[in-house]
Amino acid sequence: MSKYRVAVVGVLGAVGQEMLKTLEQREFPISGIKPLGTATNTGRAVGFAGESVSVEQAKRGSFKGVDIALFSAGADASLELAPIARDEGCVVIDNSAAWRMDDSVPLVIPEVNPDALKQHSGIIANPNCSTIQMLVALKPLHDLFRIKRIVVSTYQAVSGTGYKAIDELENQMRQYCSGDPITKSVYPCQILLNALPQIDVFLDNGYTKEETKMVEETHKILDPSIGVSATAVRLPVFRCHSEAVNIETERPIDLGTAARALASQRGVKLVDDFRRGEYPYPLMASDKDDVFVGRLRLDESVKHGMNLWVVADNLRKGAALNAVQIAETLIEMNII
Amino acid sequence: MSKYRVAVVGVLGAVGQEMLKTLEQREFPISGIKPLGTATNTGRAVGFAGESVSVEQAKRGSFKGVDIALFSAGADASLELAPIARDEGCVVIDNSAAWRMDDSVPLVIPEVNPDALKQHSGIIANPNCSTIQMLVALKPLHDLFRIKRIVVSTYQAVSGTGYKAIDELENQMRQYCSGDPITKSVYPCQILLNALPQIDVFLDNGYTKEETKMVEETHKILDPSIGVSATAVRLPVFRCHSEAVNIETERPIDLGTAARALASQRGVKLVDDFRRGEYPYPLMASDKDDVFVGRLRLDESVKHGMNLWVVADNLRKGAALNAVQIAETLIEMNII
Repeated sequence: MSKYRVAVVGVLGAVGQEMLKTLEQREFPISGIKPLGTATNTGRAVGFAGESVSVEQAKRGSFKGVDIALFSAGADASLELAPIARDEGCVVIDNSAAWRMDDSVPLVIPEVNPDALKQHSGIIANPNCSTIQMLVALKPLHDLFRIKRIVVSTYQAVSGTGYKAIDELENQMRQYCSGDPITKSVYPCQILLNALPQIDVFLDNGYTKEETKMVEETHKILDPSIGVSATAVRLPVFRCHSEAVNIETERPIDLGTAARALASQRGVKLVDDFRRGEYPYPLMASDKDDVFVGRLRLDESVKHGMNLWVVADNLRKGAALNAVQIAETLIEMNII
Repeated sequence: MSKYRVAVVGVLGAVGQEMLKTLEQREFPISGIKPLGTATNTGRAVGFAGESVSVEQAKRGSFKGVDIALFSAGADASLELAPIARDEGCVVIDNSAAWRMDDSVPLVIPEVNPDALKQHSGIIANPNCSTIQMLVALKPLHDLFRIKRIVVSTYQAVSGTGYKAIDELENQMRQYCSGDPITKSVYPCQILLNALPQIDVFLDNGYTKEETKMVEETHKILDPSIGVSATAVRLPVFRCHSEAVNIETERPIDLGTAARALASQRGVKLVDDFRRGEYPYPLMASDKDDVFVGRLRLDESVKHGMNLWVVADNLRKGAALNAVQIAETLIEMNII
């Protein structure tokens, strides 16, 4: 079996760290790891496979001899460095929003649209965390019942914003418990004991960029004919996004058929037994690979509709794991 | 102006305490207050209008000479005691679910369906907290655009479960900060740093009672022809429920018209300027009377649709305040 030299760009971030962990845990066939960061990160070290490896600055020349570069360093870094990395001969799998809607860039969830990888020309985009978990759950339902419309409300963890937001929530808990004034710098308002209906910036139509990503990426990955309406909300939760998903379909829905399809869908764990009080929640899905699905129920307010509740670890399946799975799929398909 | 002798049943609960506070703050015309509780509450005292008043046991005979009884002691107590109170000559305004769907009992939000009070025969029901805030926001939109369908996801505070849940969340924060194991007794899972898609018990169709209340009460209060689909979720928030509400209407929606109607609706505070990053959130609405509405935006996934975000203090407008407003409306209408 071939082995690959893998770079991780943005290695000191929350997703970068999770990428290293995921590569290790899944025993990705690695011949060498190259941790890359900003100039100020240079000289810091990360642990990988029991060894300490120095972080180098990501720049022109960094990608020579590298086979696969996993990027999670923000859109600006990706816009600048991904083409350089590609030109230096490696395949880029980019976790930022920079390339997702570029027509020449496949946007891939391996359980949903792996064949899109066949068209890649050196840069592949990892979808938004909220989109990934929603579409892993909806793919088998779309195959069965043809989804016409999705109304989704999200319940998102602070780790989507990175380590600084995790620290902010942690600090606010400590400030609360010690009776100190609660300070903030990452979010516009206190996130502890609150819920903020804003993720990313607002666009001219009043939707946030996060909400818009869920619409556009669903069209690119699953089906451009599906109507999507999203509300994205940040919660005082460390890990795992949850989603209340309502779908309207062309065909009649049978809940038993839906449940069986979800139970046998790769990447999905069905936790759905209301009689025993069983349903997914963020602390259940933390550090897990699967997309957890539950609370399946028919929606009688439309001709053919149903509700479901979808929970997944935003740093794993929502980011690092999906990126590593894309790399694994490239290897399986012999297109790297 | 007449003055009234008012009893508060369940006076030591979270809503009961809020009822006392609301009566004081709104200078309700009271000639005497009668705090009532369970047998074990007897002898405890509550403060009202600067005086300490002893809590008596609520039982047959308690309501003689009382004009208005505000009940918030759970459905079992209401089922037993509300008819007794009525027969002893007082008007009952009941915050439990016991009487809400009884055809002979008006279910009233004063801003939405005050005329239903004219049919009262001694017992009036206060709607569910989640229903109240949703319908205060939707009433002017229904008048303008005729709502056909509502898809709502809730983000609900622990105070809806009462003091013991407030204590549980507070304790879990302290346990987290001190590194102690996190204990629970009120909710089936840790609520801190989590989100639980279960409020109240499950019914046979997989929906919770809370979700079903939002459907049935919307039909009784606003319009039985509206399709309603709800997902109710508990969050680590002390006060204020939030709701992501998606509506589909018969008529075309103009956002400016919608905003103006909401801004002039009694009981609504419109906080909706995404260009300035302004929208409602739980900490903004805590201890406030208004239903806060924001994030108005057209939903292009259906012919006529829009999204909005609705936040209100579940103990005030969601419970105590609405009950006191019902009493005030009875007085205004001269039907007490």
